[in-house]
Amino acid sequence: MTDFPTINSQRLWQSIRTLGQIGAYDAKPLADQGVCRLALSDEDAKARTLVTQWFNDAELRVSVDQIGNTYADRAGTDPSLAPVMAGSHIDSVPTAGRFDGVLGVLGALEVVRTLNDHNMTTRRPITIAFFTDEEGCRFGTDMLGSAVATGRINLDHACALTDANNCTVLQELERIGARGDEPVNQRTPYAFVECHVEQGPILDHEKLDIGVVTGVQAISWQKLTIVGSSAHAGTTPMSYRHDAGLAAARINTKMHEMCLSGHFGPDMRATMGVITPEPGSINVIPGQVIATVDLRNPDDASMRQAEQELEQYFRTTEQGLGVQILSEQTARTPAVAFSNRVQDVIDQQAADLNLSHRRILAGAGHDAQEWSRVCDTAMIFIPGENQGISHNPREHSSQSRCAAGINVLCRTMCVLASEPS
Amino acid sequence: MTDFPTINSQRLWQSIRTLGQIGAYDAKPLADQGVCRLALSDEDAKARTLVTQWFNDAELRVSVDQIGNTYADRAGTDPSLAPVMAGSHIDSVPTAGRFDGVLGVLGALEVVRTLNDHNMTTRRPITIAFFTDEEGCRFGTDMLGSAVATGRINLDHACALTDANNCTVLQELERIGARGDEPVNQRTPYAFVECHVEQGPILDHEKLDIGVVTGVQAISWQKLTIVGSSAHAGTTPMSYRHDAGLAAARINTKMHEMCLSGHFGPDMRATMGVITPEPGSINVIPGQVIATVDLRNPDDASMRQAEQELEQYFRTTEQGLGVQILSEQTARTPAVAFSNRVQDVIDQQAADLNLSHRRILAGAGHDAQEWSRVCDTAMIFIPGENQGISHNPREHSSQSRCAAGINVLCRTMCVLASEPS
Repeated sequence: MTDFPTINSQRLWQSIRTLGQIGAYDAKPLADQGVCRLALSDEDAKARTLVTQWFNDAELRVSVDQIGNTYADRAGTDPSLAPVMAGSHIDSVPTAGRFDGVLGVLGALEVVRTLNDHNMTTRRPITIAFFTDEEGCRFGTDMLGSAVATGRINLDHACALTDANNCTVLQELERIGARGDEPVNQRTPYAFVECHVEQGPILDHEKLDIGVVTGVQAISWQKLTIVGSSAHAGTTPMSYRHDAGLAAARINTKMHEMCLSGHFGPDMRATMGVITPEPGSINVIPGQVIATVDLRNPDDASMRQAEQELEQYFRTTEQGLGVQILSEQTARTPAVAFSNRVQDVIDQQAADLNLSHRRILAGAGHDAQEWSRVCDTAMIFIPGENQGISHNPREHSSQSRCAAGINVLCRTMCVLASEPS
Repeated sequence: MTDFPTINSQRLWQSIRTLGQIGAYDAKPLADQGVCRLALSDEDAKARTLVTQWFNDAELRVSVDQIGNTYADRAGTDPSLAPVMAGSHIDSVPTAGRFDGVLGVLGALEVVRTLNDHNMTTRRPITIAFFTDEEGCRFGTDMLGSAVATGRINLDHACALTDANNCTVLQELERIGARGDEPVNQRTPYAFVECHVEQGPILDHEKLDIGVVTGVQAISWQKLTIVGSSAHAGTTPMSYRHDAGLAAARINTKMHEMCLSGHFGPDMRATMGVITPEPGSINVIPGQVIATVDLRNPDDASMRQAEQELEQYFRTTEQGLGVQILSEQTARTPAVAFSNRVQDVIDQQAADLNLSHRRILAGAGHDAQEWSRVCDTAMIFIPGENQGISHNPREHSSQSRCAAGINVLCRTMCVLASEPS
């Protein structure tokens, strides 16, 4: 198959706009439309119903598993071969835009619609899917549905997770009718591909059409409690101080220097997002600071080295400033490397379509990283506007950028689905 | 007069304890007694009544000025000579101990009681006094009474200041009966001496009995608004960041380096007490930080240089990190140098009493700095326990340390009051 169909850009755009009406809110003063569609909420239920209807309209066979992941299967010419799967999620954070997750689901649907338009059947079956609670902001665990689908998280454990009102995942699955019969951890696709907005500034800034995603960074989160002594800013000489705020400042500066040094790879990122000094008064030396450390690195070994270097610096800072630094690991996930083979296919399709492109790292978590443990996987990024802002009503991409990404997805799926066993 | 009387240490201690009952509160779990005696409150009124009664009992002539400063005069042998004045304040912060201010008032009273015991009359008259609202925490301006008494602040302006409930100083003066007839800005003592707890760690740490205070530091307060861009900690490469928290960290670190450099004198102090990042989330780069800068320096020229260096560093940081740094000066007071002559007298008395002593800088504001514009002035510090903690129920000094300071005060007043015109 060397003659690839072109997707219907207008139909894709209209679908994204229509789904964006569910959970929509008016995000004044931004003059943007926000979306709030929390996992297993009434809005999520409406979105599931609509998208399932579209799956049915496209003559797909829909099935729902026990955690609410929804699969839509399209037969291939050789039913003995494993399918190519594409998908993402349709739940959102409380202050979302219209593209995060949705593009990957409705883009895969658009691929099927396009194949239908052209009466084209691939060798391998095609499965398109949306996964339950990718965002994790309601029940506290992100990529929940795809993690259960691929065996990383146990179904019973997932079903027992609770939201802030003590509602369990299971109660909410049943309440909105999203609990299906299909057993989890059964599907083994031939390959998995997910198209997503970048949620970062690189493609927008470099004016590129397509990012070929190489993998997902390792994440290490720490909560620091820095204990010094609060004292009068006027009467306490510098040599008598135990300034917890200064300790936090040195650690923040050190983290930045570590990133720039290159000693921990070219892609180390570090952020101190929380800095809370006590008592927090202009003329009192901070006696305690709560601070957070967010480290990212695409290389697990470099991450470990960075963690060790930082830990060593805590000890140096304790001695230098006479403070105590307690660190608690609050999250830690290893790096994920996507399939080079699938990346190469994506790369080739972008080139053939004359779309500018580069290899790029995923900064956030995605369903694809769960499927990467099961089968060859990669992702396609398209640029977001406003430096790729996401999880925000200002999240935006254009019709042509979406179409570019989904045309690459369409060709990539066709190539992979044409491959023999 | 070379034969100096010795004060009654037990009587002084008992007076401090008795006055400490007014506004006392039980500061559990600290097992210390707190004092809350806000300026012109009912508790302040009770304290004024008690101390005024003690002044009368000591056969002093009491008069109250239009801002509520209370003076108690003792005649000398030469009524043509200006008096030696000693005093401090009896108002407190909301969470005070029993010594701040009180020691200087009741110590001066103990000096007069001691002179009475010995039927001693000095050549010059002696005036002891307490001044209205030294703390400034109710009406927002510290050293208010002494500033009005010495002409720095206009009486009408002071009377119109309001507290959090919109009560004016004038209303409260009248309500508690603390407004007197004596015109302000009329008294010109020969010298002014104030004994006070250090409110800092130096004397306690160096195990010294007496601090001979050389002056009060200049203060410069700034509120910084650092504007960067909030962005995703995972997806935003380091080179794309405008991290307002990192800018605050660099400024904090720079301030500390400036203090240690010695370029701005040996006694520069700098503190960043407030650091408030927005949005303050572990995985979001801070887009804005509110931070404060508290600079202290006993030398005005060095303070100006430090301010300029820091201002220059703001510009460097703006360029280096792509942020905007807005600074607002929220307070600025010049340095005060006390009289070398009075310091020498204090020094000599401490030496004659075999008390260990050193020259020391006042880190906080005191009534004495107002009087230093009018006449030769200096202060006597005694050590506080617990690193000199103050404005806290844990503020404490011992009977013997208080007695040492007031014996030095007694001799200093006797020496100064014996001097001819």
